[in-house]
Amino acid sequence: MTRIALDAMGGDNAPGEIVRGGVEAAVGLDDVKVILVGIQDAIDAELAKYPKDVAKARAAGKLEVVAASEVLEMDDEPAKSVRAKTDCSINVAMRLVKDGKADAFVSAGNSGAVSASAIFILKRIKGVHRPAIATVLPTRRPIRPLLLLDAGANMDCHPDWLVQFAIMGNAYSKAVLKRTKPLIGLLSIGTEDCKGNEMTKETFALLKEVKSIDFRGNVEGHDIFQGQTDVVVCDGFVGNVVLKTAESLVHSIKYFLKKECFKGIARIMGAILLKGAFKSLKQQLDPDIYGGAPLLGVPGAVIITHGSSSHKAIYHAVRVGANAARNDVSGLIAHDIEEYESTRKTL
Amino acid sequence: MTRIALDAMGGDNAPGEIVRGGVEAAVGLDDVKVILVGIQDAIDAELAKYPKDVAKARAAGKLEVVAASEVLEMDDEPAKSVRAKTDCSINVAMRLVKDGKADAFVSAGNSGAVSASAIFILKRIKGVHRPAIATVLPTRRPIRPLLLLDAGANMDCHPDWLVQFAIMGNAYSKAVLKRTKPLIGLLSIGTEDCKGNEMTKETFALLKEVKSIDFRGNVEGHDIFQGQTDVVVCDGFVGNVVLKTAESLVHSIKYFLKKECFKGIARIMGAILLKGAFKSLKQQLDPDIYGGAPLLGVPGAVIITHGSSSHKAIYHAVRVGANAARNDVSGLIAHDIEEYESTRKTL
Repeated sequence: MTRIALDAMGGDNAPGEIVRGGVEAAVGLDDVKVILVGIQDAIDAELAKYPKDVAKARAAGKLEVVAASEVLEMDDEPAKSVRAKTDCSINVAMRLVKDGKADAFVSAGNSGAVSASAIFILKRIKGVHRPAIATVLPTRRPIRPLLLLDAGANMDCHPDWLVQFAIMGNAYSKAVLKRTKPLIGLLSIGTEDCKGNEMTKETFALLKEVKSIDFRGNVEGHDIFQGQTDVVVCDGFVGNVVLKTAESLVHSIKYFLKKECFKGIARIMGAILLKGAFKSLKQQLDPDIYGGAPLLGVPGAVIITHGSSSHKAIYHAVRVGANAARNDVSGLIAHDIEEYESTRKTL
Repeated sequence: MTRIALDAMGGDNAPGEIVRGGVEAAVGLDDVKVILVGIQDAIDAELAKYPKDVAKARAAGKLEVVAASEVLEMDDEPAKSVRAKTDCSINVAMRLVKDGKADAFVSAGNSGAVSASAIFILKRIKGVHRPAIATVLPTRRPIRPLLLLDAGANMDCHPDWLVQFAIMGNAYSKAVLKRTKPLIGLLSIGTEDCKGNEMTKETFALLKEVKSIDFRGNVEGHDIFQGQTDVVVCDGFVGNVVLKTAESLVHSIKYFLKKECFKGIARIMGAILLKGAFKSLKQQLDPDIYGGAPLLGVPGAVIITHGSSSHKAIYHAVRVGANAARNDVSGLIAHDIEEYESTRKTL
């Protein structure tokens, strides 16, 4: 049984959607146990809404609650508050992973706080300069989503860090996204070697020499959604801006389309006929099904989901967390990083 | 009459689409004269396709051809080749502006080459650290498009440059986009003052002190398409990535939607009923109507349009170039930059 510690208090829709998603995962996913971590009363009140499922999951030993006495607020200063509120749900859940009582951790809470807690409690994998948040984006080819990292954990990055992001992303793509030979790209402003800023140019030169990855060179914003690259690395500032821009654009297009579709009876009829097409489009662009963003570089499977996560997003995040734990992503990363860094030293 | 030098040889669809757009602008725009610059034979061959319009424009003194003996290829190294090919269409047109024989220059050629030629021939406006490419993006509010700069002219930027980008963008927004009091934002990863990388944090502190602009603080990728900010500044690496990501996402959504709309008779009928809605959506997202990206910070109106510009894009770029020249954007920028830099010196 893979045990997933789930932060019941994290996210805009906590604890309602989180507990619901957790119960659904406990019932729906094979060999997965969900450990809800948070304020006992709040969790119990939510669990009471699904008596049948809860009873079923509990009987199968697939659902448990671990109490935490504190909650991190979204406007708390992340790094400070995880140190101050030692018994907040994020820290309690993280300690379950640290102590071997859980195999993975899932949270829709503040990504800065989750990262800080992970680094504080789990520390880093040996040799890793900086853990990074990797995010999975849909592309034109549904079977080939893109892993983009860093999506916001590190602002000003050193080229050496980006090289490690590539190695860590490569491991995750193979182990969890099941790409046999992931193609790695460096986000830049042109495909030619010489294009980019100082940081990407230095990174390019280093990535070319990494034996364990298949580096295809620079990729542009144009390439992100093409489904021709498996892992794209960039600094956390650029990654975060790209991610939010894409989200915002999708929302704006939905907004335009909706407005246009309600102009007149004929259009409304057309929209009804196309309901299935719109639904399918929405699903293809829906980040929820990709199950959140793994924090790579810490010894343990840590999955951060969107602050606005629905129960469905939580369900998939639990699934992905279980997957990451079962495939020992951290172990693979530790191996690949050690191999790369020892080769560098011998040179 | 506002005289626009139009690079007939620049862009993927040159000279065909460029000449066509130039003729349409000469006929359709009041008080605008189009000066086609490029290989004489190639231009004449295209002009021969529109004998009536050409005759009409010529009779009104609204169309002229100035020969250039060389052409810059898209794969030429930009900065080098504009120096080597002194008689290429970009340089010839730029000299028309320099010599007061044209009021603005429009090109769909390589943006690096156009920028290099502009800086080489026109030099910079006094006090400007680095000219920047500003690009106009559609937002949810059609009357309030967003000016994003730098869109790719400068990779590694100093905070002082970004402050000037804000001042230049402010001037352009007022003069050409007709915003009376433009709201200026700094692209970052959170709205709080403390969020961002080292460069944006330093820029934030400087922008707060600029009296001549209305600085609203950090804006996120989320805000770009909301229509609540008029000018957003960032370094050219980030700006270029944002721009290309957005373009790529729009294409991917079109691709998904098309595929879905052809699945079955009912959907095809629905799509027919919604044809108008799709067309309107396309128009709202169409960068062509915004008429290309001004290069701000050089003494002269220089407009760079997309490499794949159609005749329609060229028509609008000529319109925007005329607008920028008539409103003396360069003069306004020179004034605002001088004012800002002299205040800084007194401090």
